Order: sequence, then structure tokens, then C-alpha cells
Amino acid sequence: MAGSPPIALLTDFGSRDGYPGVMKGVILGIAPGAALVDLTLEIASQDVADAAWVLHTAWRYFPLGTIFLCVVDPGVGSTRRPVALTAGGRLFVGPDNGLFSYVLAAAPPDEAVALDDPRFYLPDPSATFHGRDIFAPCAAHLARGIPLGKLGSAIAVASLVTFAMPRPVWQGDMLQGQVLHVDRFGNLITDVAGALAAALLTTPSARLAVAGRDIPARAHTFAEGPEGEPFLLADSSGHLAIAVRNGSAAALLGARRGDEVIASGVPHERADEPPR
Amino acid sequence: MAGSPPIALLTDFGSRDGYPGVMKGVILGIAPGAALVDLTLEIASQDVADAAWVLHTAWRYFPLGTIFLCVVDPGVGSTRRPVALTAGGRLFVGPDNGLFSYVLAAAPPDEAVALDDPRFYLPDPSATFHGRDIFAPCAAHLARGIPLGKLGSAIAVASLVTFAMPRPVWQGDMLQGQVLHVDRFGNLITDVAGALAAALLTTPSARLAVAGRDIPARAHTFAEGPEGEPFLLADSSGHLAIAVRNGSAAALLGARRGDEVIASGVPHERADEPPR
Amino acid sequence: MAGSPPIALLTDFGSRDGYPGVMKGVILGIAPGAALVDLTLEIASQDVADAAWVLHTAWRYFPLGTIFLCVVDPGVGSTRRPVALTAGGRLFVGPDNGLFSYVLAAAPPDEAVALDDPRFYLPDPSATFHGRDIFAPCAAHLARGIPLGKLGSAIAVASLVTFAMPRPVWQGDMLQGQVLHVDRFGNLITDVAGALAAALLTTPSARLAVAGRDIPARAHTFAEGPEGEPFLLADSSGHLAIAVRNGSAAALLGARRGDEVIASGVPHERADEPPR
Repeated sequence: MAGSPPIALLTDFGSRDGYPGVMKGVILGIAPGAALVDLTLEIASQDVADAAWVLHTAWRYFPLGTIFLCVVDPGVGSTRRPVALTAGGRLFVGPDNGLFSYVLAAAPPDEAVALDDPRFYLPDPSATFHGRDIFAPCAAHLARGIPLGKLGSAIAVASLVTFAMPRPVWQGDMLQGQVLHVDRFGNLITDVAGALAAALLTTPSARLAVAGRDIPARAHTFAEGPEGEPFLLADSSGHLAIAVRNGSAAALLGARRGDEVIASGVPHERADEPPR
Repeated sequence: MAGSPPIALLTDFGSRDGYPGVMKGVILGIAPGAALVDLTLEIASQDVADAAWVLHTAWRYFPLGTIFLCVVDPGVGSTRRPVALTAGGRLFVGPDNGLFSYVLAAAPPDEAVALDDPRFYLPDPSATFHGRDIFAPCAAHLARGIPLGKLGSAIAVASLVTFAMPRPVWQGDMLQGQVLHVDRFGNLITDVAGALAAALLTTPSARLAVAGRDIPARAHTFAEGPEGEPFLLADSSGHLAIAVRNGSAAALLGARRGDEVIASGVPHERADEPPR
Repeated sequence: MAGSPPIALLTDFGSRDGYPGVMKGVILGIAPGAALVDLTLEIASQDVADAAWVLHTAWRYFPLGTIFLCVVDPGVGSTRRPVALTAGGRLFVGPDNGLFSYVLAAAPPDEAVALDDPRFYLPDPSATFHGRDIFAPCAAHLARGIPLGKLGSAIAVASLVTFAMPRPVWQGDMLQGQVLHVDRFGNLITDVAGALAAALLTTPSARLAVAGRDIPARAHTFAEGPEGEPFLLADSSGHLAIAVRNGSAAALLGARRGDEVIASGVPHERADEPPR
């Protein structure tokens, strides 16, 4: 299927049980030659918020037309809707549970459907593995050219479930944020982004603390950071991050996702920006 | 190689050492453009029985003609035969050590060969990595159209090694089964399937215990289960499973693969079914 | 892009954060249909030496023309150069930090460039994720046919960074080597290779100790080794390895990478060979 768009998988299925492999088998049966790419199969079990974050950092880097097949689905088989939508020139398929919150905030969707037409399912879909029985076949039908609007009933884009994305808030002169994501290297990626992140990195009097510890050092790159001491830098997502050179900030600081980040000394007039 | 069948890998090599990557390199040298899919690379080391189970849950979902390249091979280099076979419209390549037990029980093979023709090996095959030197090149030759019968000497399908698949047995009025597989989410998948599983889920007086603990709750989906308490449901493989909503049944119950499952209150006349 | 060469990824990014997935998205935007293969995404964080070893064991098994996209890059954003080079009929893209040491020792490079032309980068490259912003797009441009020499300024191949590869050394009559790599199965792969490895496996009076423990047993395959006792065999890389049948030599011996290996009883005249 030369010319068919990539299908990028994002799931919490992990790889050892073969669940994503089975989804790929289903796709290749419907859309032979489909270009399958793993965005990640290793989201922590049922962690919809982290999946939404990873998708946020990734989707703009894929070609126009890419189909994101996203299955982090603690509500599988319940009343949550299976949906597909177009936004920002890409297609997104998955449960309507907030997975697409960042995407929808950055790129208002053009069209959305409930995946309610069993003709595009596998026969006799199970109640417990919609990744295999509903989402993979629907993504495959999109890849072979079925228009989104044919896959199910149109739904109002305003009806799509979104969760409140973490954003730092002002408490007097203090900016209170949180650790959004801890990556494989132990880097702590915060919800402080844009102009506020820039101000924290460049204003000598600005201060930031995470997990109760002040982080005075700044660096432009990982290699420029001080040895053995946590430092601030701008992450590749544009967010402020805390890192340790050749080490793990999460381990050194005993920090984890959701931990509070407190900043001060940043001019209040620097407005925060919406997620990009 | 547009139109060439997918090659699906199933191994215990893990991904960090590059062993499956090397196998893919070998395949692409012989069958350029081959469509490579990871079923799973993360079977526990040398766990042939679990690999056979994962293959059982997966193979029917891949297109006809798919080549399953299965290398969980504790006997590499010993007298166990390298084989290839067709069954159920797919091809299977790997060591003759029981990996294909479930497949062969569900879909009697049409043809089988011993991979004994070194012309289809890499030159100078090692004694310790037949995945790279024998199985991958033979699978690649199949992908580029060499007929199965040309790859080696025909062998009797009855000579293929199979192991006894776990099946629940009646002990008086008690049905004694076991945990077949523990998945990434901590779900315990049992050897109770088909009509027996349906009876356990729908008969009010039926009872099931695992790891010495009675599991009274039932649910149709993961989301419908009670909070914090293990429950029974039908897994996507059609087998009876024990799950915990937003949690791990394995962790909560301290249960593991092979643990005994005891059911009672199920009518004896409900015969067990062969694996599907 | 039928006929385009494979792009093989080697990184320490792991799979859970989506970093390699984003790189693949970038590649598919520049070179639609590129054949992407994971050599491994699971190198231990920032372990350039181990990445170099895995690449050494793998690259010859990939087709001529394969592009190896190698990003283990603790110096990202610092003065280390991003480079691309041809050697042994394949192309290699990555940071100039020693990653290619084994490749360069075995196959002197034909041509090398610094990746200093921003026209082949993503716009506004970050300081912290050159895998996404520089290396992936440059590899993709190679895949779609841009000649190596057009990607940046020519550099002297002698200027490429290499590190001293571990080699066993004679201390009187004792040969002192080390554990180079510990694989998923717990096999200890040593720096003793070639004629010395063969001598240790076949000379009855030869002895080898690792982690202070003598390893008297030898085997030709994993299955032939004694039960519960570590033994020597020739690994699939041609190196001497210590294994345990159906078990982990690393766990049994408490051994790890870098541990000393001491051999004796091997004729001194058996010269060590360069890495193959």
C-alpha cells in the first residue's frame, strides 16, 4: 500500500503479552502494507494523563495524514465512546476518555465520529479488548482510504471528553506548578513552559524548587550542567525540566510525577501560554 | 517487496542486546522490503510454554500467509530440529520444541519440513544463534516466495513435538485448573475456557478460588468490576480471567502462573472444549 | 519508497517516553515509506561503550546501504560533532563520541562529514534532542537519496573520535581480560575472541576465571552445558562467553560488565586478533 499514511500506536499494553502485535496483525489483514510505527507501547498501565502528554510531545512531528491509534482504555467495554477525529491535519482513533486533551487544546478538531458502525469492527467484538476488535480495524479502514465520516455517527467536537491540563498557578508572588512527566533518564519535566520557562532560565533572581529542594543551577544542554547537582534547562518539548548530568534527577531528588514545583522571582506580567 | 506477506517475530530475546534487530537485518538482506512485525520480543527467557500461549492468542488475527518466526529456543544447537510448517493458512518457522503446540491442536498442519538445507542458512552458522543464522534466513526465503517444500526435507506432521496443554480436570465435583498466563496488567488468565467459563460466569451457585481465595464477584468488563476486589470475567482470548479494576490481580492475590484454580458448582455435563 | 535502504535505530531512549517514535515520525515526513528497523532502543542510559559493542555485533548482518541511526548522546548540544560516515558499505549517523569505534576499527571509513548544514535539520533545532532535530532528518535525507557529501562539510576520517576497545592483555603467563557485555539471558560476553577463545575452549590445560571463580566446564551449545554450573562457550559474536544452562551466569556468579577475566594455560604465541 505505497502512499498509505503511517499508523502510529500509543498504548499501555506493553510488548510482552503480544497485545499490540495482535492489533498489527488485524491492521495488516485490512490494510496490507500499512506503515506501522510504535510511538510507544509502554505507557504505565491505564495512565491516560501520561499518554496524553506523550502524544502532545509527538504528534506534530509526524507527517500530515498520520493516523494515531491510541489505546489507553481503563473503561473498555463501558459507556465511554470509541471515537475518531481529525485535528491539525492528522487523524486520531481511540477511547473518548481525555487521551486527546492536549491535541484538542492545540488544534481544534475538524470532525469527529463515534465508532458505532460494527461493519468496521472485527466480527463479534469482545468486551475487553477494543484495541484489537474496534480501534485497530477502524484505524486500518482509515488507512485504506475510508473517509472519517463514513466510519460512524458524527458527534459534536465539543462533546469530546477533555481533562484540565496541568498549568502552573499564581499564589501571590509564587508560581505553583508540578512535575508533568518523568522520563527514562529521570528528567523531571514540569508544567512550566513558554515565557515563564524562559524567564526562570534567564532571570538571575528567579528561583525554583521541586520536592522541597531549591535548584539554583541552570544549563543550556545536559552536558553543560554541573556534576552531581540538579539543574534547570529547557526540555525538547519547550517545558522547563530538572536534570542531572549523567544521572537521574528523579532518583537524586526522590521526585515523582505530580510533585509540586514552586517558582518565585519571575515577573508576574509574564503570562503563561497555552500548551503548544 | 509489495505484496510480500508479513513476518511476525515471537522471541524471548528482549530488545536491549540487539538480537531481534540483527535477525531483521538478515531478513532485509534476503527479502528487501519485507513487512516485519513484532508479535512480542519479550517472552520470559526460555519460556516455551508461555510463548506457545501468546502465539495461540495471536495467530488467527494475522492475515493468511503471515510467516511467524518464533525463536524461544533453549535447545539451540542441540538435536532439536529446526522446522517450518503450514497450518491454518499461515506459516510457522522455529525450533521443534513444543512452541507450536496450541497451533497444531487447533489447525492440523498441512505440511512440515526440517530446515536441513544449509543453502538457506547464513554461511557458517553458529551453534548458539540459530535465530540469526537459520530461522531468520529461512523465513526470509519463504517471504520472497520459496515454497515451503523446497526449504528442507519433508517430515511427518505427527513427528512434530507438542506438549500437553494445560486443561482443567474434574476431581469429583471440583474442577481443578491453573493460571496459564499473567499479563502486564496483572490479570490472571486461566485454562478454563468455553462452556465451562461461561457457566462459571453465569451460574449463581458456581464458585471459583485461586491461590486459596474465593473470587465471588463477576463482571462483563474491567470497568464494571468492584473497586479493590478481584473479580472474574471473560478474557479477550475466551478464557476465564481474574482481574482487579485499575489494579493487578497478581499483586493483590500474590498469584502467579501455574497457581491452582478450583471451581465448583458447575454442572459436570458441561464438557470442556478444545483450545480454539 | 520501494527500494529505499533500511534505517536501523540504535539508541538509549527506551520506548516508554516516545522519543524514538518521534524520530520515526520525523523520518517518515521526509522519506515517506522508509523501512524502519529497531536494532535496539534499550541501551542503558548514556552507555556509549555498550552501544558501540551492540553495533559491532550487528552491522554486518544488515544489507549494504543500510543507514544506522545511532543516538546515545550524553554530550547532546555540546561541542561534540554530529557526523555521518560510510564504512563497510553501510552509512552511520550519530554523535562523534566513540559510538563507531568498533565499526571504524573493522572497516576504515570511506568518507565522513560533519552534519553542519541546517538545511537538513528540522527548523529551530533544540539543544537537547538532536536525535529528533538533527540526526533523524539527516538520516531521512540519506534514505531519500541525498549523497553523504552533500549533507555537511567533509571531515578527515582520522579526526573521528574512537575509544580504546577493551582487549585482553598478557601479564606474564596470565591473560587478563574483562566482561564486555552482559546480555538479557545473563550470559557474560568477554573480550577474549578469535584464536585465544578457540584455544581456551579446546586446550585441556587452559583455565579461565571470572569474578574470582574458576570455570572448568566447556560446551558447544547452551543445551550441552552442565546443569547448574557455569561453563564456557563461543558466543554468536565469536567471543568467549560464560553461560549457565537455563539460567543466568551473571546472577549465579554475581558478575557484571567490566569484571576481570583471567585466563592461563593458553600458548602465548596465539596472538589475539583485531575485532571482527
